[in-house]
Amino acid sequence: MQEWISVKIDDLFETVVEVFEKLGVPKEDGKIIADVLISADRRGIDSHGVARLKRYVDGIRNGVMNPKTEITVVKETPVSMVVDGGAGMGQVVAYRVMKKCIEKAKKNYLCFATIRNSNHYGIAGYYSMMALKEGLIGISMTNAAPLVIPTFGKDAVLGTNPISVAVPAKNEKPFVLDMATSTVPRGKLEVYNRLGKKIPLMWATDENGVPTDDPARVLRNLLERKGGGLLPLGGADELTGGHKGYGLALLVDIFSGVFSSGAWGTDVYGKKGQPANVCHFLGAISPDAFIGLEGISENMDNIIRMLKNAPKAEGKDRIYIHGEKEFEKEKERNEEVPLYYKVYDTIKYICNELGVEFKL
Amino acid sequence: MQEWISVKIDDLFETVVEVFEKLGVPKEDGKIIADVLISADRRGIDSHGVARLKRYVDGIRNGVMNPKTEITVVKETPVSMVVDGGAGMGQVVAYRVMKKCIEKAKKNYLCFATIRNSNHYGIAGYYSMMALKEGLIGISMTNAAPLVIPTFGKDAVLGTNPISVAVPAKNEKPFVLDMATSTVPRGKLEVYNRLGKKIPLMWATDENGVPTDDPARVLRNLLERKGGGLLPLGGADELTGGHKGYGLALLVDIFSGVFSSGAWGTDVYGKKGQPANVCHFLGAISPDAFIGLEGISENMDNIIRMLKNAPKAEGKDRIYIHGEKEFEKEKERNEEVPLYYKVYDTIKYICNELGVEFKL
Repeated sequence: MQEWISVKIDDLFETVVEVFEKLGVPKEDGKIIADVLISADRRGIDSHGVARLKRYVDGIRNGVMNPKTEITVVKETPVSMVVDGGAGMGQVVAYRVMKKCIEKAKKNYLCFATIRNSNHYGIAGYYSMMALKEGLIGISMTNAAPLVIPTFGKDAVLGTNPISVAVPAKNEKPFVLDMATSTVPRGKLEVYNRLGKKIPLMWATDENGVPTDDPARVLRNLLERKGGGLLPLGGADELTGGHKGYGLALLVDIFSGVFSSGAWGTDVYGKKGQPANVCHFLGAISPDAFIGLEGISENMDNIIRMLKNAPKAEGKDRIYIHGEKEFEKEKERNEEVPLYYKVYDTIKYICNELGVEFKL
Repeated sequence: MQEWISVKIDDLFETVVEVFEKLGVPKEDGKIIADVLISADRRGIDSHGVARLKRYVDGIRNGVMNPKTEITVVKETPVSMVVDGGAGMGQVVAYRVMKKCIEKAKKNYLCFATIRNSNHYGIAGYYSMMALKEGLIGISMTNAAPLVIPTFGKDAVLGTNPISVAVPAKNEKPFVLDMATSTVPRGKLEVYNRLGKKIPLMWATDENGVPTDDPARVLRNLLERKGGGLLPLGGADELTGGHKGYGLALLVDIFSGVFSSGAWGTDVYGKKGQPANVCHFLGAISPDAFIGLEGISENMDNIIRMLKNAPKAEGKDRIYIHGEKEFEKEKERNEEVPLYYKVYDTIKYICNELGVEFKL
C-alpha cells in the first residue's frame, strides 16, 4: 500500500472548492478556503492542510460553521476594528479582515483588528503573509479549542493559540514566525502514537497533571475530558520556562477573545452543536510607520545573513530563519502535494457522499 | 554575616539619585532611573534592581552611556515614532518615549515607537505598566547584549530580548507578562554557580554548542567569548520548541533594532567603550481601539478567574497569573527592600568614591 499519494494542486483546488460549494459555501469563499488549506500542504504543514477538510465539512453540517460568511464591523477607528465573524468560515473571515487591515495600514500606517465569533482559520501564517505581498508587516493570532494546561493546572483550559509575525526582506526570504504557544500541537502526539513512540516529557501531562511519555493516554484523556493535556512552550515547570509559554497562550486569548468580547478559554467550542466562537487578532504595519520598506528590508537581509553565517553547534550544519524551511518546501511542491493515504481516502469519501466528481 | 540587609526605600531612592547626580545625570532623570531600579527590587526582580547600579556607573564613566539624555524624534506619524536615544540613559529614554506613546494613543488609539541608540533600560515591565496607570494596554521590548544562541548555532549572537505586555483588569490585578525570550537570564546561572548546583540542560550550551549542566563553564565561556551561551525558551532542540524561543528573540531584535536602523545581534555592545546602541520597541494601545476599557477590564477579570479557579495539578495548590507574584512582593516591600550584602557593599563603595553620604 502506498502511504503517500501525490496529487495535482490544480485538481485538489477544484475538488475542495466544489466540496464547499455543495455545502452552501459561495464559490469565491470556497476558493479562499481552498487556497489557505493547500498553502499549508505546500508549506509542509500537512496537519493544517486538506487533512482538515472533514472537520470543516462536519462543522458546517453540525451548525458550528455558517457556510455563508457575513462579517459585521462592530466598531471601527482609522487604525483598528472590532469584527463579528457571524459564525462564518474562519478562513473567509480572516482573509477579508486582513485585506481591510492592509488597506487601512497603507493609509494610516497601522491597523489592528480583534475578531469574535469566527471559526478555525487554518495556518496563522497565511494571513500575516498576506501583508508581505503588499510590502507590509503582518501579524496573526487566534485562540482555539482548549487543549493546553496552564502552569500548575490539571485541565486543558487554553488553546494552542498560535502567533504569527511576517516581516519582508529584500533579497533573502522574509521572516515568517508561525508558532503554536504549546511545545507541540496535538497532531505531533498523534504521529508518535501511530508510530508507537514515547513522547518527550516537555509535551504533555496525564489526567493528574503530571508529565507523561504516553501519547495514547494524553489523546484519550483529551477526548474524554479527563484532565491533562498539552504543555505550554517551556514544559510543566517554571524552571524550564513553562510559565512563559502559558503567558504567551494567555496573551493570544486576551488579544483575540477578551479585546473582542468573544470567547476565551473553555468557552471556545464550549457548547456542542453551537458556533465555536473562535476569536482572532490580525494586524498590518506599514514600514512607513518606521524607517520605511527600503531600510527595513535591507536591515532584514543583514540580520538574516548574520544569523545564517554564525558558527554552528557540534553536529549541525545550518541555522534556519523562521519560514525558511516552509518556503523551500513550497517551491518544491509547486505542482503537486503528497496526501497521506487516509486523507486521500477521506476526500474521496466526502466527494462520493456529496456527489462531487473525484479527480485526484 | 548577614546575607540580606533591609534598607528603607526612601533612603535608597535618595542615594541612587545623588549617585547619578554626581555623575552628571540631571536630578529629574536620576529620579526616573531610581524609580525603575527600585521598582524591580520591590517586585522581587533583584537581578534588575539596584544590583545593577555599578554597571550604570561604569557605563557613564566608560563612555557607553551619556549622562545627559537627549532624545531625537527622527520620524513621527500620528500613530508611530522612530526615536534616537542619543546614547542616553536607557530608563530615561524609554520613560520619555513611553509617555509620548501614551499621549498619542489617547488621541489616536494606538502608538508604537522603535528606538535606537539607547542603553540598558532595566525591567521591560516598568514601561508596559506605565500604560496601565492611564487605563491603556502597554507593550515593551528591548534587545540586549548577545548571550543567547540561535537553534543549531554555537555562539551567542542574540540578546535575552525580553517581551512585556500589560493589560488592565477591573477588580483583579492586571496581567503583566514580562519574560526574557531565553529559558532563563544569565543571573540564574550565577545563582546556581554560587550555590555549586548543576543547571538543567534546557538552560545553556558549552563552547561546542552542546547542552551542559555546568554553570561555571557557561559563564566563563560567555565572558571570554569562547562560544556557547544561554538557550532560547524551549532549549537546544526543535523537539522541545527551542526554535520558537529563538524566533521570539529574533522578533524582538527586528522590532527594536531593524525597524529603527539601530543595532542588532552582535552589534549591540559591539565596540568596547563606544555607545552600546541598545534598541527598544514600545507601544500603547487604547482600549477604545477595541471594545473599550469597561468591557476589556471586565473580561480580564473573568479570564483571570477562570484560570485561577481551574483544577490544580497533583501537588500544586495555585495557578498564577503573570505579574501576580510580583504585585504581592511589591505590596510586601512597600517601605523597605532587602539588598544582598554584596550589593549593599557595592553601593557603599560607590558612595564613598563619589562623595555621596551613605545613609543606608
